[in-house]
Amino acid sequence: MAQEKKLVEAITSMEEDFAQWYTDVVKKAELIEYSSVRGCMILRPNGYAIWENIQKQLDARFKETGVENVYMPMFIPESLLQREKDHVEGFAPEVAWVTYGGGQELTERLCVRPTSETLFCEMYANIVQSYRDLPKLYNQWCSVVRWEKTTRPFLRSTEFLWQEGHTVHATAEEAQERTEQMLNVYADFCEEVLAIPMIKGRKTDKEKFAGAEATYTIEAMMHDGKALQSGTSHNFGDGFARAFGIQYTDKDNQLKYVHQTSWGMSTRIIGAIIMVHGDNSGLVLPPKIAPVQVMVMPIAQHKEGVLEKAYELRERLATNFRVKVDDTDKSPGWKFSEQEMRGIPVRVEIGPKDIEANQAVVVRRDTREKITISLDALETKLSEILALMQREMLERARVHRDAHTYTALDYEEFKDAVANKPGFIKAMWCGEEACELKIKEDTTATSRCMPFEQEALSAHCVCCGKPAKTLVYWGKAY
Amino acid sequence: MAQEKKLVEAITSMEEDFAQWYTDVVKKAELIEYSSVRGCMILRPNGYAIWENIQKQLDARFKETGVENVYMPMFIPESLLQREKDHVEGFAPEVAWVTYGGGQELTERLCVRPTSETLFCEMYANIVQSYRDLPKLYNQWCSVVRWEKTTRPFLRSTEFLWQEGHTVHATAEEAQERTEQMLNVYADFCEEVLAIPMIKGRKTDKEKFAGAEATYTIEAMMHDGKALQSGTSHNFGDGFARAFGIQYTDKDNQLKYVHQTSWGMSTRIIGAIIMVHGDNSGLVLPPKIAPVQVMVMPIAQHKEGVLEKAYELRERLATNFRVKVDDTDKSPGWKFSEQEMRGIPVRVEIGPKDIEANQAVVVRRDTREKITISLDALETKLSEILALMQREMLERARVHRDAHTYTALDYEEFKDAVANKPGFIKAMWCGEEACELKIKEDTTATSRCMPFEQEALSAHCVCCGKPAKTLVYWGKAY
Repeated sequence: MAQEKKLVEAITSMEEDFAQWYTDVVKKAELIEYSSVRGCMILRPNGYAIWENIQKQLDARFKETGVENVYMPMFIPESLLQREKDHVEGFAPEVAWVTYGGGQELTERLCVRPTSETLFCEMYANIVQSYRDLPKLYNQWCSVVRWEKTTRPFLRSTEFLWQEGHTVHATAEEAQERTEQMLNVYADFCEEVLAIPMIKGRKTDKEKFAGAEATYTIEAMMHDGKALQSGTSHNFGDGFARAFGIQYTDKDNQLKYVHQTSWGMSTRIIGAIIMVHGDNSGLVLPPKIAPVQVMVMPIAQHKEGVLEKAYELRERLATNFRVKVDDTDKSPGWKFSEQEMRGIPVRVEIGPKDIEANQAVVVRRDTREKITISLDALETKLSEILALMQREMLERARVHRDAHTYTALDYEEFKDAVANKPGFIKAMWCGEEACELKIKEDTTATSRCMPFEQEALSAHCVCCGKPAKTLVYWGKAY
Repeated sequence: MAQEKKLVEAITSMEEDFAQWYTDVVKKAELIEYSSVRGCMILRPNGYAIWENIQKQLDARFKETGVENVYMPMFIPESLLQREKDHVEGFAPEVAWVTYGGGQELTERLCVRPTSETLFCEMYANIVQSYRDLPKLYNQWCSVVRWEKTTRPFLRSTEFLWQEGHTVHATAEEAQERTEQMLNVYADFCEEVLAIPMIKGRKTDKEKFAGAEATYTIEAMMHDGKALQSGTSHNFGDGFARAFGIQYTDKDNQLKYVHQTSWGMSTRIIGAIIMVHGDNSGLVLPPKIAPVQVMVMPIAQHKEGVLEKAYELRERLATNFRVKVDDTDKSPGWKFSEQEMRGIPVRVEIGPKDIEANQAVVVRRDTREKITISLDALETKLSEILALMQREMLERARVHRDAHTYTALDYEEFKDAVANKPGFIKAMWCGEEACELKIKEDTTATSRCMPFEQEALSAHCVCCGKPAKTLVYWGKAY
């Protein structure tokens, strides 16, 4: 049993050092590998397969709303990036510049896209002429680059994978509707597939996207009480349209500017999956997103008929589940701890005695519960167990979040909460950036969002005591 | 009927100017849009959807052979690129260099990946220790950048999308087996899904990949008789392993170098689909790869019940086919010519008289054949028609290729063929690069491959007359 110990001992416990626990898990579960490229990480098969599943299911949800995929160049000429003032100010400091190509110095620098608003705008200006051309609902899956000083796997890296949707509409109402629709697509996906409950709301002006009129966000709480911004949706109004000249002839023959949105979710969300569901044995993956849902574990596999039975179960289960057999020559204990480290939702143990009794032992990754089931009912029972696990993981995450959400009515209460109670703090705000800045300076907590579900906790701003305009979720954030 | 004319007239006929026909089709079928980024193109929904289908089907074929997907950084530090001598010589002249990041000049330049051998090698050196770690069968879907002087949509662009597989094996035999296996995966995919017949063979040393021991290729013939290299598979032997120190401890406890392969297919193959199957009305897409397979066309759609019937047919057909309804207010003739331009395999015309007769008229894109079918047998008949179309498209491409494949026994015959008969030329070769270079200089034809299916046309090299070693396919190439 020395081996199993080694694998688990290799990760720091989360109570001891949450940041180190996180780093250990992404490495030991073989999600990522570091490279000699500063700030960039390699997504290994275990990590990339999670992203593939996210892509597949999120993409299907996009397409159901009429979205089409495209691919834009990865380079943006400097002059194009500079067309929208707020946008370039927001991004220029963190871009990478290509200055040489094909052995020659370029006459104009190209930045590697940090986001593609400017390219989409240029295209829309070319292809949109009439109201008949609207709306355009385009999205792309790609990687983007933002030069980061300090990086952490999935959470912050120089290059990361994401999708960016960019739409143009005839009216402001349609653009607002699409902005909220996509935020709901993200929130529903996270709750239903990733088992992560989200707070939906609007960002304060200070926290909104460079160039946006309004930014909406979904915010999740990690196991350590910190917030993770998990997806954003922006309404640009007609600001970019005016900067890039995206106009259409309306039915009334008038030339009008389009109204625009963009929305994105990135590999960051894999960090959320890890930090919401993981435990001291490693990753715990929600069944709906797990690349392998069922690991069949032959016990005493050298004995006659055991491996054959394991393969037979794999055959049977492959119709309904993503299933593998661990037929390596490692010890069962080692195999179990690998399966646990990788977060595979259930293992199905099958040994000589089980075969004799026409049964198998199913072990849930999240609760460690052992359930003996008849092989005749294997598919039905496994479906039930995985569905239950998916529901309970969401429920546990919700309970954890709610138990770590506090309210603060005055500034002393607020400062005490940030200092001593890791979690979200609900508090009223006057709407002035000065208070937001003061709170950040005093406590390091930032405004996460002005939630759609508003409450009137008090009539006064938690910071300055002046009349309050809105409820805000505050917290320390990744 | 003025409108339909406009759409078709907008493209040059292929007999008049094949290159212009090609450019017109990619633009009018809305596959691509040019951008202000030099040499880079935008893949619009009609174009990207073809790539998505290619990805989906090719990826499934890869995974059936045990391949797993990963994602590697898009940047390669200059020192890493320089590790393998032949490789850096092959790629350095055409790379783009990032020299500034986050507002500062970098201490080491980073190139934007032209291909990722070096990154994969660095990773394998880190993660491969024992024979138990082998083989590793990794692939990535990404974009790569090669600075091109002249560019053409899909065929040659500064940035393009592709997949690159990189595998490491314990033995030379296994690596050779994998190299050939992946070439066969490409060839089968092209024939079965894209309806493009391929010549499989080995590249001459002159034409092989920078750093490879042997390069294998699949070559297709375009409608104009030119060749298009459509996918390649390389055996690296242990050359990269030695340069990067990728070693494993074998069962006999000896430290050994791994043997390596790589293989790739790119958006170039969309150029092949266009140039093999297209006609003077636009694109013709093989049913298995077409993003939309069936376009339901309501005729006299203002009449009662027509649109409802069209939607009803869409509902029914959506179970088995990728189907859309064109319910825009354009004229039927205009709709037909759009559907033809986009290469949608069949349209299903449904008007008041058809509804009365419980029938619909199916029109095949490739042959223009009109087939009246009973609505009771719609699904069955459509399946048959699409399957037949798929088979006949492959067969027509094969007949065209064979009719434009010539043999040359002496140099006069060879030169005459290149000058007057667009197509492939089969001719014997002595194996000397001098003859290859002379042929290229005299005729502009290049060696496409030494085919697996060899014939002994004569005992003498078609160029120098010395003893021949092998049969070679020659041709002008994209």
